[in-house]
Amino acid sequence: MADKGQTVDASNIHGGDIYRHPDCTDFSSNMNPLGPPERVIRAVRESAERFSAYPDVRKAELTDLLSEKEEVSPGELIIGNGAAEIIFLWAYALKPGRVLMTAPSFAEYGRAVSAAGGSVLYHELRENEGFRLTERILPLIEGLTPEKDAVILCNPNNPTGLAADRELLDRVAECCEKRHIRLLVDECFLDFCDSAEQLTMKRALGKNRMIFVLKAFTKTYAMAGLRLGYGMTRDTALISQMKNQTQPWNVSVPALAAGAAALQEGPEYMQKSLALIRKERQYLFENLTACGLGVIMPAADFIFFRGPADLKEKLLRHHILIRDCANYPGLSRGFFRVAVKTHEDNLKLTEAMREVMRHESV
Amino acid sequence: MADKGQTVDASNIHGGDIYRHPDCTDFSSNMNPLGPPERVIRAVRESAERFSAYPDVRKAELTDLLSEKEEVSPGELIIGNGAAEIIFLWAYALKPGRVLMTAPSFAEYGRAVSAAGGSVLYHELRENEGFRLTERILPLIEGLTPEKDAVILCNPNNPTGLAADRELLDRVAECCEKRHIRLLVDECFLDFCDSAEQLTMKRALGKNRMIFVLKAFTKTYAMAGLRLGYGMTRDTALISQMKNQTQPWNVSVPALAAGAAALQEGPEYMQKSLALIRKERQYLFENLTACGLGVIMPAADFIFFRGPADLKEKLLRHHILIRDCANYPGLSRGFFRVAVKTHEDNLKLTEAMREVMRHESV
Repeated sequence: MADKGQTVDASNIHGGDIYRHPDCTDFSSNMNPLGPPERVIRAVRESAERFSAYPDVRKAELTDLLSEKEEVSPGELIIGNGAAEIIFLWAYALKPGRVLMTAPSFAEYGRAVSAAGGSVLYHELRENEGFRLTERILPLIEGLTPEKDAVILCNPNNPTGLAADRELLDRVAECCEKRHIRLLVDECFLDFCDSAEQLTMKRALGKNRMIFVLKAFTKTYAMAGLRLGYGMTRDTALISQMKNQTQPWNVSVPALAAGAAALQEGPEYMQKSLALIRKERQYLFENLTACGLGVIMPAADFIFFRGPADLKEKLLRHHILIRDCANYPGLSRGFFRVAVKTHEDNLKLTEAMREVMRHESV
Repeated sequence: MADKGQTVDASNIHGGDIYRHPDCTDFSSNMNPLGPPERVIRAVRESAERFSAYPDVRKAELTDLLSEKEEVSPGELIIGNGAAEIIFLWAYALKPGRVLMTAPSFAEYGRAVSAAGGSVLYHELRENEGFRLTERILPLIEGLTPEKDAVILCNPNNPTGLAADRELLDRVAECCEKRHIRLLVDECFLDFCDSAEQLTMKRALGKNRMIFVLKAFTKTYAMAGLRLGYGMTRDTALISQMKNQTQPWNVSVPALAAGAAALQEGPEYMQKSLALIRKERQYLFENLTACGLGVIMPAADFIFFRGPADLKEKLLRHHILIRDCANYPGLSRGFFRVAVKTHEDNLKLTEAMREVMRHESV
């Protein structure tokens, strides 16, 4: 399924529209349910004293901290105005011909590829395979044009919440390396997986220059509104090219301050976050399944399921905002995504869902 | 003079590097010397309570306020991560062949054009014409390829601080319209000119769809670190194309909040700012001239002059950071730019300058 350069109104293709639904609890965008660390909030508040000056064009403090955390050199690192900017910069720098990506996956991949003049090649995940990534993708990569085409994978995938099998990921990466096909792996949700350390492609960066790993502060530290993401590759020339596709002040003073503060957070914050998400993910999985919804057991901090086509509208009446996934390529009406939130919020969701689904089955 | 697609390290081509010079008073970047309005600082501080959510993809509040202030419809308006992002989006959307711009002018124009695959055609301003824009530019526009090439002008120009003659600007715009040549006019510093209302090309937008006017909150409200700029054109298709070249969350929650707060500021803030700048501009002009520097009387909030080649280094010893303009295309060593700041700061500059220049002439 090829889809050449069409443009869409980005304002209609994403969740998180709390601005048109201020009275709702938002389950349509996913981030750390613990909320941002106190020191990050403080850092943003303090940045109000010094936003008159331009942000540091070298992003020196955050670059040093990230470089240490991720064990990559500063030249192997690019910091962006959210992970989304980095997707565009990667596409602009490489100007790939065709880019293979799964359907469904995050809509900005396709928008970025189209913006850079490339075309999108969708690999449809199948409902009867539980929307898992399978070996079916390998011959498609074999069919791509070396030095020209590229692959984007989201792991765990948005909106399914499923993590790819590590062995399959390695085979994808090897295939890309052998054929000189660039591979972007979006790991923005990976920090919420129990097996993040095993799943990350960061450990493959050293031996495979085709790989570009994308990460965000957005999800991990619940700071989507500040816009801060980064990417890593061993190909330092690609990093330089990407930096040439944007202004030197692409990241704001509050975002740089928040990022530096977040990286000074100890391991307890993420341990506590993971424990909460693990428990609440299980709670939501069981309770949404008990409502009669077709729920996939996810690995990340959001849950993907099948339900009645008008479920979103019905839940809005209960002041619950969920993500209707009907406009994801590869999906039709009746697919939804909800964030794993605090138990208090999740209770609101399951109560409203029970109410809605009770009338549904009558 | 044509310069095709070369790339440069952006971290070395701009002023404002207070991060490597924390002990200096910064005269190397220019913004409103009054500092941000109190309500803008408050808005940023308050945004620390709600940066967990994504920014509004529709930027509804700020779009409405701007649309009213600038008397353009929302579809004629694009809001960006600083004016600098908008320059890149304009170039990416139009993919112009050759882009005519003055040398010297703001370095991001050339970077954006190169990033979008175009080439830069420099029109050198002449020292013996006081670096003024003259009719010499008109035949150059006549020589551009219709529907393909473009023109970028900065008014008042950076780094010279000179405003273009209104009649000449009109002739440039007419020539562009007649020949279907896109024209970006950067008015980021125009709010600091006494004759802003007479000089702005906004009033020509209605009759000339080739014109794109660029504005920033950065300079006017002293909020460079937040990144907020916008652009206007009657060509709504261009606006849509530009939006397709970036993510929907390109502007952060703090920046959107600050922008909305700034637009609620009454006229007193700008009146006070203009009065301060007018007085201090004159003070600096007289005192720098008295030091034996070749100063151009500027229209904006910064001053351009000739001085000894190592002036920047010498002033650093006095904890004064100025902009060495040697790396602007069209300039050589010995050109400098300083911001007009508060009288207290300007005293520091003139004292240090007198000290440095006294030894210079011995």
